Amino acid sequence: MCRWLAYSGTPVLLETILYRPEHSLIDQSLHSRMGVETTNGDGFGVGWFGPEMETPAIVREIGPAWSNRNLREIAGHVRSPLFFAHIRASTGSAVQQTNCHPFRHGRWMWMHNGAIADFHKLHRDLALAVDPRLYPDMEGSTDSELMFFLALTFGLEEDPPGAVARMAGLVEEVGREHGVEYPMQMTVAVTDGRSLWAFRYSTQARTRSLYYSSRVESVRALHPDLPYLREASDETRLIVSEPLGDLPGVWNEVPEGTYGVVRPEGDDMLPFVPRPVRHR
Amino acid sequence: MCRWLAYSGTPVLLETILYRPEHSLIDQSLHSRMGVETTNGDGFGVGWFGPEMETPAIVREIGPAWSNRNLREIAGHVRSPLFFAHIRASTGSAVQQTNCHPFRHGRWMWMHNGAIADFHKLHRDLALAVDPRLYPDMEGSTDSELMFFLALTFGLEEDPPGAVARMAGLVEEVGREHGVEYPMQMTVAVTDGRSLWAFRYSTQARTRSLYYSSRVESVRALHPDLPYLREASDETRLIVSEPLGDLPGVWNEVPEGTYGVVRPEGDDMLPFVPRPVRHR
Amino acid sequence: MCRWLAYSGTPVLLETILYRPEHSLIDQSLHSRMGVETTNGDGFGVGWFGPEMETPAIVREIGPAWSNRNLREIAGHVRSPLFFAHIRASTGSAVQQTNCHPFRHGRWMWMHNGAIADFHKLHRDLALAVDPRLYPDMEGSTDSELMFFLALTFGLEEDPPGAVARMAGLVEEVGREHGVEYPMQMTVAVTDGRSLWAFRYSTQARTRSLYYSSRVESVRALHPDLPYLREASDETRLIVSEPLGDLPGVWNEVPEGTYGVVRPEGDDMLPFVPRPVRHR
Amino acid sequence: MCRWLAYSGTPVLLETILYRPEHSLIDQSLHSRMGVETTNGDGFGVGWFGPEMETPAIVREIGPAWSNRNLREIAGHVRSPLFFAHIRASTGSAVQQTNCHPFRHGRWMWMHNGAIADFHKLHRDLALAVDPRLYPDMEGSTDSELMFFLALTFGLEEDPPGAVARMAGLVEEVGREHGVEYPMQMTVAVTDGRSLWAFRYSTQARTRSLYYSSRVESVRALHPDLPYLREASDETRLIVSEPLGDLPGVWNEVPEGTYGVVRPEGDDMLPFVPRPVRHR
Repeated sequence: MCRWLAYSGTPVLLETILYRPEHSLIDQSLHSRMGVETTNGDGFGVGWFGPEMETPAIVREIGPAWSNRNLREIAGHVRSPLFFAHIRASTGSAVQQTNCHPFRHGRWMWMHNGAIADFHKLHRDLALAVDPRLYPDMEGSTDSELMFFLALTFGLEEDPPGAVARMAGLVEEVGREHGVEYPMQMTVAVTDGRSLWAFRYSTQARTRSLYYSSRVESVRALHPDLPYLREASDETRLIVSEPLGDLPGVWNEVPEGTYGVVRPEGDDMLPFVPRPVRHR
Repeated sequence: MCRWLAYSGTPVLLETILYRPEHSLIDQSLHSRMGVETTNGDGFGVGWFGPEMETPAIVREIGPAWSNRNLREIAGHVRSPLFFAHIRASTGSAVQQTNCHPFRHGRWMWMHNGAIADFHKLHRDLALAVDPRLYPDMEGSTDSELMFFLALTFGLEEDPPGAVARMAGLVEEVGREHGVEYPMQMTVAVTDGRSLWAFRYSTQARTRSLYYSSRVESVRALHPDLPYLREASDETRLIVSEPLGDLPGVWNEVPEGTYGVVRPEGDDMLPFVPRPVRHR
Repeated sequence: MCRWLAYSGTPVLLETILYRPEHSLIDQSLHSRMGVETTNGDGFGVGWFGPEMETPAIVREIGPAWSNRNLREIAGHVRSPLFFAHIRASTGSAVQQTNCHPFRHGRWMWMHNGAIADFHKLHRDLALAVDPRLYPDMEGSTDSELMFFLALTFGLEEDPPGAVARMAGLVEEVGREHGVEYPMQMTVAVTDGRSLWAFRYSTQARTRSLYYSSRVESVRALHPDLPYLREASDETRLIVSEPLGDLPGVWNEVPEGTYGVVRPEGDDMLPFVPRPVRHR
Repeated sequence: MCRWLAYSGTPVLLETILYRPEHSLIDQSLHSRMGVETTNGDGFGVGWFGPEMETPAIVREIGPAWSNRNLREIAGHVRSPLFFAHIRASTGSAVQQTNCHPFRHGRWMWMHNGAIADFHKLHRDLALAVDPRLYPDMEGSTDSELMFFLALTFGLEEDPPGAVARMAGLVEEVGREHGVEYPMQMTVAVTDGRSLWAFRYSTQARTRSLYYSSRVESVRALHPDLPYLREASDETRLIVSEPLGDLPGVWNEVPEGTYGVVRPEGDDMLPFVPRPVRHR
């Protein structure tokens, strides 16, 4: 599948997070430990918010992240308080820019690890459920982008957890209609530039790994020398497919069937349950 | 838009046709004379049949044809009796391999110059009309690929002219429903590896240019030194978006609203009229 | 050949300069008016300085600029007070990232339009003249990068005009030794992040075009509505291969055999004369 | 480093060798077992001879082989009696087409796994030793291409083993001058379209792995069902960086400090010893 990382907190050079940690996302592109594949070389993307930016900037490429010089340049020169990064391991769909994460709609940015099982069977029915006004904006052929557009259809911009729950509910319902036992497998991150939501859910309750970083003050107490959190403010938070290193006390698993929200007024973690949607 | 070329006849090194002529397709990628744009640099593709080949080989890339070394290598080393080549000028859809022509389904190969007007308005309704069993095989986001899959839905493999007529009929009907005055603009080539069909049609009867080469014996009589037809058998035929040179007597315009078929048992040219399709 | 643009002045979103003007560099990538070729589609690069940046960020790609989405993203989200942009039309050397401009060495950034005539004859002798400590840092195969490394060898970091003059002198001397009548053809921009030098010179005194923008206050007086100079400070200056539009009073030709310097303490324009270098 | 494969024998669809075996080269691009890195995703190349071909066709790309659709197409449609395939794991030099193997000069094709140690120190001296008439034909920045051009300089076209021995001798001498203890590490394949030479040598006598296939008749006796040798003539031979599967009796290690030649008049295996070259 894929690996991803979401950062929210003190503005930081992207490379501090993307390249510096011992088991950084770039290292994971060659040597993922917890993924289905050790190699995540089928494209990558990075999306960031910055001062005065109405919409996130999103740079995506189809080659591997580990050798991409432009990613290195951007990471070494751009600071951001809120950014996503994603490395892709295609499960069959084309290696093309429009299939790379993150996806964007207005201020909203979305990335996904996992898959809709038997997607070729469900693809058409799910595509039909997308708001016809949004339909022409889908450019790629992934389940991930389609999940984003379903969530948008179901009100992502007003109620992110509710919209994602309805999206997952629809996928499961359409899956059942096609005899797919475990249709949904997802860890998802989504942001509007202010808050950051992360979801961990699969129909079978065996979801790909997802971790969040401990409170900065406690990490700092444990590991006063950890460079990439040195200047981090207390509300800085990382959510990652797999830990960026082995240090004890830094990384906590997001429980199965859970979503979290990171936002200025305080973080939170709650159960995630798909909601039924009547789609015909 | 785009430029394309279809060849059927004596097996020939691809470069003889693709690179050698004075105003070759490669030259047209930089200096098209009859296209909407002089530059066709948004990807290219070549598809060829060869001895013992069940399906055509198709090589597509997203960069310009003029500088592509792999295309030069293939053209300089592959012989074929039946091949397509296409250079793309995107009208907005993503520059990605799955949007490059030719498209393939089994033995069938398809390429297109033109556009469905206001495609973003018609896209969804047209996609819904594709046979659900074929739907998941669409990988790109172009009108051209969708036209191919509609033609397949309407029986391309049994009756190519009829299926293309129904495809065009559907596009015009859906266009009318959305208030699009002139929905269809197309020159299309399609082959099953044995016969080659070419269509020139637009709702407004102002279709992009399309030419076919004169009978080889008459060309040879006029221009005994023309290298790329020197070894060509009498039944060799080229169909092109624009002539590969200025020689008189070589190129003939395919009339508006016409299709032609090139095949072992003799070529033919007939009127093309879209057929109504009841799509709901 | 190529087209380039150098900006120094009020920090501005790159797109204001790269995409907005009527005949922007992006427009020039398809429709250059003064270049040898109308199409400049063999790669591009953009390099920018920003706050707290020790070195410029450089993003280079091998496809055409006109369709590159990452360039659009960066241009739409990055502000800079000093940046270079370059679009390439290869005269034969490979289309690869290491042949795209700008080139960088430490804080220094270099870009070039033109060519060393008969470069294949002179290449080896010129490469041998590069400081052996710098030699392994050359990654591409262009005359342009080699010119940069020769200028570095001859003291670019201490005396830019002098180093460029010695570089040009060496090229002309080596050219003469190989019987090349007019070895040098160049417009070059170089910066250390503070000052910006631009050179226009060719052995034959028939150099590719180069223009600089008039003082902002006088442009503003002439064209109060020109959007991309609206917020520009008085010391803002653009140097371009060809004007970004047709407005009278905005663009001035850099004379033959001249170099200019744009810097905080005041701009200047002086004659450029290659200096003899004894290279054996 | 890299992985490569050389085939000589009965004309075969490339995919029979490249994709079908259990641990094919494509599998090795993701899961190399004997390489320094498990992933070889920094570009690939395939070069083949065919009927009536004066020179080999060479297709090279900068992305990973495992996801490349054009490689799949070519492999599925091209037959050849003599071909090379190479997957690259860059040790630092740029990921670009001109750094991908195989390299070509006229009829000659060359590929390499390994490295010249401390290449940045030796690069310039070695480049100066290349025949000045050949110098401008070097397009990339790898040690591998430079080794090829040194071998050409030393008479590769007349005496391949002797030229490669002199090339290795020069590399070791220049290495010693720069204080490099073990300068050479190489497995190399080279062909003129008729014979195929393969070399395994390193200064330290710890060379990367290299294997050759047993005589077809004995393999067939052991494994009558092995599909990719089913139609192979007796003189068919494969030389590979690592075995394409685990079957006993199929693969034999090329000994340290050895080269082999595969040719119509009979194969041979001989000791390889670098020859001193006076390079100043």
